[in-house]
Amino acid sequence: MLSSNQRKLITQLSKKKYRISNKLFVVEGKKVVNELIASSWPFQNLFTTEDNFHPDAEKLSLEEMKKITHFKTPSPVLGVFILPEVQKLLVEPITIALDGVSDPGNLGTIIRLCDWFGLSELICSKTTVDCYNPKVIQASMGSITRVRCYYVEDLGVTLTALQKPIYGATAKGDSIYTAKLPKEATYIFGSESHGISAYLSNHLNGELAIPQFRKGSSMAESLNVANASAIFLSELFRSS
Amino acid sequence: MLSSNQRKLITQLSKKKYRISNKLFVVEGKKVVNELIASSWPFQNLFTTEDNFHPDAEKLSLEEMKKITHFKTPSPVLGVFILPEVQKLLVEPITIALDGVSDPGNLGTIIRLCDWFGLSELICSKTTVDCYNPKVIQASMGSITRVRCYYVEDLGVTLTALQKPIYGATAKGDSIYTAKLPKEATYIFGSESHGISAYLSNHLNGELAIPQFRKGSSMAESLNVANASAIFLSELFRSS
Repeated sequence: MLSSNQRKLITQLSKKKYRISNKLFVVEGKKVVNELIASSWPFQNLFTTEDNFHPDAEKLSLEEMKKITHFKTPSPVLGVFILPEVQKLLVEPITIALDGVSDPGNLGTIIRLCDWFGLSELICSKTTVDCYNPKVIQASMGSITRVRCYYVEDLGVTLTALQKPIYGATAKGDSIYTAKLPKEATYIFGSESHGISAYLSNHLNGELAIPQFRKGSSMAESLNVANASAIFLSELFRSS
Repeated sequence: MLSSNQRKLITQLSKKKYRISNKLFVVEGKKVVNELIASSWPFQNLFTTEDNFHPDAEKLSLEEMKKITHFKTPSPVLGVFILPEVQKLLVEPITIALDGVSDPGNLGTIIRLCDWFGLSELICSKTTVDCYNPKVIQASMGSITRVRCYYVEDLGVTLTALQKPIYGATAKGDSIYTAKLPKEATYIFGSESHGISAYLSNHLNGELAIPQFRKGSSMAESLNVANASAIFLSELFRSS
């Protein structure tokens, strides 16, 4: 049985300000909740409509679950997890940074990509969607347990302090297929609608692009940012 | 001023069966509607909340637009376009086929990817989400005007008839970074949750995989299907 306070809190946790003030976030879906538990991520509550999901889980009716889900269709499992403390930067040889990526699905799949290619950190501008947004968590498919998003006030200052060359993914850059892609460097991807901000552009040591193969007067303007990141990461790691 | 019949029809067009019975589909967003008009795609109606969008556009109030949009937030432009007749297969050297991709955002960005790499056709199983779904159109960002989705009853039969080797993207396949990737071949991507169907697996001449770079006991199970397609397409075209 869900108390009205619990219900109110869980509903509020769809918003970043309540996640921060309560130091909690919500994860839905059996697979992702299980991954967080397996990674020893501390939780406050587990709710389930199933029997025998977890000894600490509270059983809810489907009606109760519908009242707290952040999605149109509830999952059989919802967990309230503790927001981690901000830690120090890890600084791996290859750093991926995001400047204003706003779509939760894009951030989630970029986290999943970083995980696939063995990266454990993603540096994000404050203008990038919060990684504890329920849709980001869902799209990350558990990779949030292995890839930490590190949010910074000023990407230009933080990335310059890493003392590695900084490359931006832009429409007009050199082809990633022919340019040298250093294995100790930072690669930045910009927002879905505006690309890399004008301010951050001044901090770049170079610009790189995925060349377009269609010829003609009518062609695509850009690739989806997660797909562009996928191609960059593949190109960076394929020969390493 | 919108008639109640128009309103009812546009709302119904969110469903595939009404798109087919009316031979119409809805496109929202100025950029995508403009791309369809520029490609001479025939339309039945254009609606806009703006002045001077197009000589044939009917002006609507924001309130009226809110009643017909298929999204949470209406765009300033909504067009009702004519569903094209099914044409013959184009058969390009490289064929991309989708077996049960169900997420509209994934199909939309895969269409955008095919466009980027110069492909004009995507062969889809009947179990793949309809390409005239409003969310697919939106995610394709106008690439639907250059990449046609060809839906087939039986992917196994259609792809075998192309008389090219058929490769499936699977978790256990050979690394795309070391395997030979023929430039005349079909590459299949399976559904988000189940991969390539057991039936279609019997038609494969080979299996290919994107190797995972993270080492350890805990790792990602898979990549998002659109990101996997991005990496495959990049690998296929990078040296062509």
